[in-house]
Amino acid sequence: MPPPVPITVRYRFRASSAAEARAHADALLVEQTVETPPVVSQRYPYVREHLMGSVAQVEDLGEGHFHAHLVLPEGLAQTDTAQLLNVVFGNASIHAGLVLDGLDLPESLLVGRGPRHGLAGLRALCDVPSGPLVASALKPAGLSPDEIAALAFGFGLGGLDLVKDDHYLADHAFAPLDARVRAVVEALDRAADRTGRRTRYAPNLSGSPGEVFRQADVAQRLGADAVMVAPMLVGLPTTAELVRAHLSVPLLAHPSFSGMNVASEVLLGQLFPLVGADAVIFAGYGGRFSVDPEACRALARRIRAPFDGMTGAMPVPAGGMTVERAAELTAFYGPDTMLLVGGSLLAADTPGDPTALADATRALRLAARPTGC
Amino acid sequence: MPPPVPITVRYRFRASSAAEARAHADALLVEQTVETPPVVSQRYPYVREHLMGSVAQVEDLGEGHFHAHLVLPEGLAQTDTAQLLNVVFGNASIHAGLVLDGLDLPESLLVGRGPRHGLAGLRALCDVPSGPLVASALKPAGLSPDEIAALAFGFGLGGLDLVKDDHYLADHAFAPLDARVRAVVEALDRAADRTGRRTRYAPNLSGSPGEVFRQADVAQRLGADAVMVAPMLVGLPTTAELVRAHLSVPLLAHPSFSGMNVASEVLLGQLFPLVGADAVIFAGYGGRFSVDPEACRALARRIRAPFDGMTGAMPVPAGGMTVERAAELTAFYGPDTMLLVGGSLLAADTPGDPTALADATRALRLAARPTGC
Repeated sequence: MPPPVPITVRYRFRASSAAEARAHADALLVEQTVETPPVVSQRYPYVREHLMGSVAQVEDLGEGHFHAHLVLPEGLAQTDTAQLLNVVFGNASIHAGLVLDGLDLPESLLVGRGPRHGLAGLRALCDVPSGPLVASALKPAGLSPDEIAALAFGFGLGGLDLVKDDHYLADHAFAPLDARVRAVVEALDRAADRTGRRTRYAPNLSGSPGEVFRQADVAQRLGADAVMVAPMLVGLPTTAELVRAHLSVPLLAHPSFSGMNVASEVLLGQLFPLVGADAVIFAGYGGRFSVDPEACRALARRIRAPFDGMTGAMPVPAGGMTVERAAELTAFYGPDTMLLVGGSLLAADTPGDPTALADATRALRLAARPTGC
Repeated sequence: MPPPVPITVRYRFRASSAAEARAHADALLVEQTVETPPVVSQRYPYVREHLMGSVAQVEDLGEGHFHAHLVLPEGLAQTDTAQLLNVVFGNASIHAGLVLDGLDLPESLLVGRGPRHGLAGLRALCDVPSGPLVASALKPAGLSPDEIAALAFGFGLGGLDLVKDDHYLADHAFAPLDARVRAVVEALDRAADRTGRRTRYAPNLSGSPGEVFRQADVAQRLGADAVMVAPMLVGLPTTAELVRAHLSVPLLAHPSFSGMNVASEVLLGQLFPLVGADAVIFAGYGGRFSVDPEACRALARRIRAPFDGMTGAMPVPAGGMTVERAAELTAFYGPDTMLLVGGSLLAADTPGDPTALADATRALRLAARPTGC
């Protein structure tokens, strides 16, 4: 049996010498634990014995970059999700130029957390046992429920696996959540009657906790197959409570407002699944965001295996993906991927005639899964 | 009467030419609004007329830095706090190297938001009509309720204005919230019986929303004078709901987990007060964080005046402040300031003898407010 994993964080920072880097690592350990001078923390036996943590290693990466590997006290993080984030990167996040780019958690902190459906659950929901999945978005914000449903009908006819709301769709007067969900579910059912295959729908939830929980109830009651939230907008602990207490359907996580000094592989690849995301949308290589291809591939791998023993989530590259590049991109990311294509499909739409959008959708699906299914 | 203010954001980024900067600004506008190709968004009259926003200005800051000033559609942001953040900096936050460093909001989005007590309410609570306020922290995490209360007693004897929990104190088995609040309130009452002056107490709340709301009820019922949360840990919308639906006492905001690509003046100076913080703790010049003095002064000014017409909050510089530098630092930040001094006071403590901590506390108070009061 492998030894138990402690909380281990890896911080990247610059320093002018190995000695300075070591001093910085020591200071960061204090920052993330007792946050008092040694003369104070050493007075208290329980603190001294259980809550000091340690600097496991300071690694010279060359060219003035260093990695500090800290072991942090499990007992300090055990109460709740907010506190877990606090211990992992609370005050350290305020230090300019510091990045959290590695994280390990002990099993005690994984219990009751993580995706409930995960990658396999998404596959089952969409009835795609193998090969990449394809998804799209209902947008722009400002469309009426009928206009949104018309798009959904085209996607449904084309056999799209999953369609989600644009992340700018909240509970607006121009398209209230309940009217939107009713209209889209009806449109997808109608399309399925013709095709024999049902596109799945994930409406977007937004608001303060009470409102998000209410919207989750409404969406599920009206037939949503999954829901989407942006964990950094609503808060990671809110997302955790949503998943644990209010959701039976899978959760898609959107990356809005996630520009933190935490590496994507940790924030989206580990922390989003930790609070229960079954699928994680990210700005993917091959679109309009400047992102490194290998970093994207590593992020996708991490989403599928966030922590040892945790159910993997579905990686969902997005942000300017196109039908034309679908084959190349699904080859790049591998089959355990949901490709999210928005504008490129919607540009093919002809309002009033669902067949144009259906044809583009079908082309996307065939590009991603040439053998059909 | 001045013309109504729209939602205006200012993004800072690098570009190799004015033309590239303009193209980037145009792309960012699409990113923050319709997020679809023009051929799609132009199809829908409501979208075209109300939800496109505009690029107000692209400013060349020299040396390859630019500012894009965007006007964003108020109607898109009106539903809730998460959506407001989404419109202001949702997907834009994912673009590497981009910083949100300016924000204006229309009055319609300020209604029902902002500090309820604010700077003046904190002064009234602590009974300090003029001059800087002084505060400290109960730490390290790991102390028992009795050990915490012993520190509180010393602070109370010394006439500290406000004492808060360390932000690492959650609802741990070694110091559960209810036992902690009971013990500290009792200790501060006891000290007040001797001095005639009552130190105010702000326990820290942590958890997912249901837990934070429960803790708020417990803390207030047991006599807490204020509470603290870290808005970026629990989520900004959760903080807003906490303030609106669960708190009567003032709220202190802690900066843990706030290392985003949003300028401190916007995140801590405007968004924290927007969700209801009455006092905002920040890593202050003069302590252990490397921060620019003028940026700190500007941040303090902004906390006191977050948006036109909004109640100002109390700036609370912290993070390595010392008794020795108290006079200099309160002169630097000005009288509308609460100086938060932790380790430097605690180092003076002698367990078992409250007079040592009381003397150090008294020295801090006199350094900050030489005329007494």
